[in-house]
Amino acid sequence: MITVLCGGVGGSRLMRALANVLAPERLTAVINTGDDAWFHGLYVSPDPDIVTYALAGHVDAARGWGLHDDTFRWNAAIGRFGHETWFQIGDRDLATHVHRTRLLREGATLSQAMTDIARAFGVRSRLLPMSDDRVRTVVETDAGDLPFQRYLVERHAQDAVRGVRYDGAANAVPAPGVLEAIAEAEAIVVAPSNPIGSIGPILSVPGVRDAVSSSRATRVAVSGIIGGRSLQPPAGEMLAGMGYTVDVAGVAAYYAGLIDTLIIDEADAALAAAVQACGLRARVTPTLMRDASAGAALARVALAAAGVVP
Amino acid sequence: MITVLCGGVGGSRLMRALANVLAPERLTAVINTGDDAWFHGLYVSPDPDIVTYALAGHVDAARGWGLHDDTFRWNAAIGRFGHETWFQIGDRDLATHVHRTRLLREGATLSQAMTDIARAFGVRSRLLPMSDDRVRTVVETDAGDLPFQRYLVERHAQDAVRGVRYDGAANAVPAPGVLEAIAEAEAIVVAPSNPIGSIGPILSVPGVRDAVSSSRATRVAVSGIIGGRSLQPPAGEMLAGMGYTVDVAGVAAYYAGLIDTLIIDEADAALAAAVQACGLRARVTPTLMRDASAGAALARVALAAAGVVP
Repeated sequence: MITVLCGGVGGSRLMRALANVLAPERLTAVINTGDDAWFHGLYVSPDPDIVTYALAGHVDAARGWGLHDDTFRWNAAIGRFGHETWFQIGDRDLATHVHRTRLLREGATLSQAMTDIARAFGVRSRLLPMSDDRVRTVVETDAGDLPFQRYLVERHAQDAVRGVRYDGAANAVPAPGVLEAIAEAEAIVVAPSNPIGSIGPILSVPGVRDAVSSSRATRVAVSGIIGGRSLQPPAGEMLAGMGYTVDVAGVAAYYAGLIDTLIIDEADAALAAAVQACGLRARVTPTLMRDASAGAALARVALAAAGVVP
Repeated sequence: MITVLCGGVGGSRLMRALANVLAPERLTAVINTGDDAWFHGLYVSPDPDIVTYALAGHVDAARGWGLHDDTFRWNAAIGRFGHETWFQIGDRDLATHVHRTRLLREGATLSQAMTDIARAFGVRSRLLPMSDDRVRTVVETDAGDLPFQRYLVERHAQDAVRGVRYDGAANAVPAPGVLEAIAEAEAIVVAPSNPIGSIGPILSVPGVRDAVSSSRATRVAVSGIIGGRSLQPPAGEMLAGMGYTVDVAGVAAYYAGLIDTLIIDEADAALAAAVQACGLRARVTPTLMRDASAGAALARVALAAAGVVP
């Protein structure tokens, strides 16, 4: 079993790539739910849905989120009632949220809902939320404390970051199977997701960080920062706001003590020594998953670095 | 004030026609909510929405329900999760149900939600549910007891009707303003809606029938049965199942003691005597609202029969 800690876009792309080079059943994803939010009375779970849709082959590749060829007619219509429409939910995507909300209201846990939705999409990997409890990533900015989606989607990550909190984490419990998936993993892969915005919430759930750092599995992370920029906003902004350099050295510093190897892009080869200075091995390879072939190549490098035979 | 008892398609068309010949503010609709149902965790209120959309000029004229030019992408998508998709809800229409469900979950009454939605659509008439309590129209058939929408939409009114119940009616209370709207009306108009399926539930709420029959206003009904057939299913099937003839005489028998005048179509002129035998006046006029002009003509006849000066 390969256990992948992952967020949304970057995480989903690496999960898809891994599922292309080994049996999808060998993969367990522990997914960030710190961005989850109620919109219009519906429970929206952005990162798990992106991973589900990507593994099912239904994700909108251009946007990186949502279902391909979706329309946004209901989302425009809700504006008539005075509701905010900045958080775009597609018409077909909405069915997932309506279904999940119904399951949760009927008493299902987030884990159960996630499993049900993944099965409906034919996903063969195991998808786990980091916790069944509510943990909210809050970005502390000059404009005040902002829930993650509001900071990123509504305000376009324009506000200077002063801090990041994971509200509710202290009292959260890892979802069933999470600690086991980490403890019993053959390898642990940290996806090229937003370190503070997507991986940080997972690590904030009591017990998860210790499980990773004490795991006997080889632990490999892929940097989502390439050439001093994040592939997806707002990883760079959040690293900078928290005092890290926005480069692979900053990523290495954030993951120091947690992982064994950081996979960095060829563009950052010159920073390999800085990565090593954080106590990590650096593995240099092309990391941009431009297409399925590039993704598969990266997945093979990550697995090799973790000592996994596909 | 003109108070209109109405259901969905027929009711909405007469409301629209009335609003075209007098100030919409003079109209109060008391609307059937016996077809209301929870679908996919959302509270759907078919008749009030049809009336709202029609008055706003947004109803799909061909279907008679829903919003014009709507799509049904979310409805198809919910099928992936194993849910029934026979009750078609459009993508833009869905926003109304999401909004209403949220209001209800936040503690709003059905009346408050209906007022809010009507205002959002710019409706200037007053729309009242028959009750804020749940009343469910159940059709007793050879195939068992069926909620109204299941009987009509899923099973196409194909099952022989043995009886009709209004579950919850005994303990329901008229919505705020309903009894006053009836007692203080200048005229009461019963729309050409399904007598047993749409008007019956309104009359089943304790106090409503008495308020109508004891009102000093002139009470006029428009027959939705023309030439022995109902304009919309399943009014005929339900009348027949309950032992009424499927013609204007059957409608007159159902409304006997409640109203003063039944407006019947020219095609049924020969049955005027049968209507009068039920103690009602019969007013013969074209009743098909083929277009706005025909609707306006019918509205003027109904108002004249009620002694109202537009």
